[in-house]
Amino acid sequence: MLTKNTIKHINALKQKKFRDEFQQFMAEGDKLVSELLHSHYKIIEIFALNEWLDNQKIPENIAVTAVTTDELERISSLTTPNKVIALIEIPQQQAIDNLIFNKLVLVLDEIKDPGNLGTIIRIADWFGISDIICSKHTVDAYNPKVVQATMGSIARVKIHYADLAGLFNSLSKEIPVYGTLLNGDNIYTQTLTSNGIIVLGNESRGISEEIQYFIQHKLYIPSYAENPQNKAESLNAAIAAAIVCAEFKRRFFKK
Amino acid sequence: MLTKNTIKHINALKQKKFRDEFQQFMAEGDKLVSELLHSHYKIIEIFALNEWLDNQKIPENIAVTAVTTDELERISSLTTPNKVIALIEIPQQQAIDNLIFNKLVLVLDEIKDPGNLGTIIRIADWFGISDIICSKHTVDAYNPKVVQATMGSIARVKIHYADLAGLFNSLSKEIPVYGTLLNGDNIYTQTLTSNGIIVLGNESRGISEEIQYFIQHKLYIPSYAENPQNKAESLNAAIAAAIVCAEFKRRFFKK
Repeated sequence: MLTKNTIKHINALKQKKFRDEFQQFMAEGDKLVSELLHSHYKIIEIFALNEWLDNQKIPENIAVTAVTTDELERISSLTTPNKVIALIEIPQQQAIDNLIFNKLVLVLDEIKDPGNLGTIIRIADWFGISDIICSKHTVDAYNPKVVQATMGSIARVKIHYADLAGLFNSLSKEIPVYGTLLNGDNIYTQTLTSNGIIVLGNESRGISEEIQYFIQHKLYIPSYAENPQNKAESLNAAIAAAIVCAEFKRRFFKK
Repeated sequence: MLTKNTIKHINALKQKKFRDEFQQFMAEGDKLVSELLHSHYKIIEIFALNEWLDNQKIPENIAVTAVTTDELERISSLTTPNKVIALIEIPQQQAIDNLIFNKLVLVLDEIKDPGNLGTIIRIADWFGISDIICSKHTVDAYNPKVVQATMGSIARVKIHYADLAGLFNSLSKEIPVYGTLLNGDNIYTQTLTSNGIIVLGNESRGISEEIQYFIQHKLYIPSYAENPQNKAESLNAAIAAAIVCAEFKRRFFKK
């Protein structure tokens, strides 16, 4: 059974200030919770219907509360609650290890839409990109809408938050820095590398001027529209992320 | 000023059955309405704040009603109403002209999420794909959420609804038919053509068995994850659409 205090606590975690205060977040649904159970995340408690619990082996150090459908509805973030909700510890931010730049890393300069961030985390997971560095003003990765949109990929991709200008200033100039810009060069005719940073900008403004300063290679996804005067102005941020990640991987990891 | 009947009529258009009955839809916001004004769509009436109307030249055959911010809120589909709403005629479905298959055409086999459909329309517009054919069970393209998500691209991309099996049966077997499938062949090592059909499947089930029968070339977007046992299960439907469209265009329209 759920106590009033538990209901209040879980619902509070829908707001960033309480996630920051308690350093906890929630994840919902069979697939997402199952993947988090097999990840480095520390699960504090699981609230689930008996029908879900009956099919699970849950480690003994995790508290488990069986709940009714009604109770699940009272703590869910979804229109249709999905069997199980987990209360999870937000991992402590660690200093960024420079070794991550031996591979491809995504840097997000103020992605604001939770669906976009979740989708970008899922794309990174698909393409074997294990680290994403977000600017301080990027939407919180532990926002329930982001967590849901990752479809479980948050269990595998490490999310860092950092002051981007400070980070770039501290990095070796030998690490290639790419960015998607509408005035960039055709990505399909540029030399790319198998490691480095790909910067993706905000949904409406793109990459900020402050961060553009650090971009060594400006990339553009050509539109190939028949009439360049009469076409979409831009691609959605997650769509651009996908096309760029696919092209880097295609070049260096032929299968 | 808005009459009660007008408010009722516009709000009714948020539901498919009333869009079907009246053969009308609504579009909202400065950018979207401006692009529709310069398209083949027939605008019936515009409801806008005076500050918007002051900067527009609207053709005389279009009715114009100045509204207050309060009135706009009462007919808006958005959390933050955006200056102008247009009432627009849904174009009559015309028989599909076989000439469209001389270029690339997208076929959607039951895309359900309005955001995904809107994003796919925007992607098609970016890549110069002018026709999309949707299965009868694909979400309605004139749903306000789809229209908004196209960011204006609905003004340029033609959307057809058709019985897909019937369509495929009637088509010449010389038109190449591609489809994205998890058991397909690496798209990056396959021969592609500059024309033909690209079939994209439903968000959870992929391409239905009935339609898989017509796919001549099964394509797969390789994941390149280091551990193929521990990665995202799939890509979002719009993300897959983007990567596939980009690859077809890259091959044939080098810039």
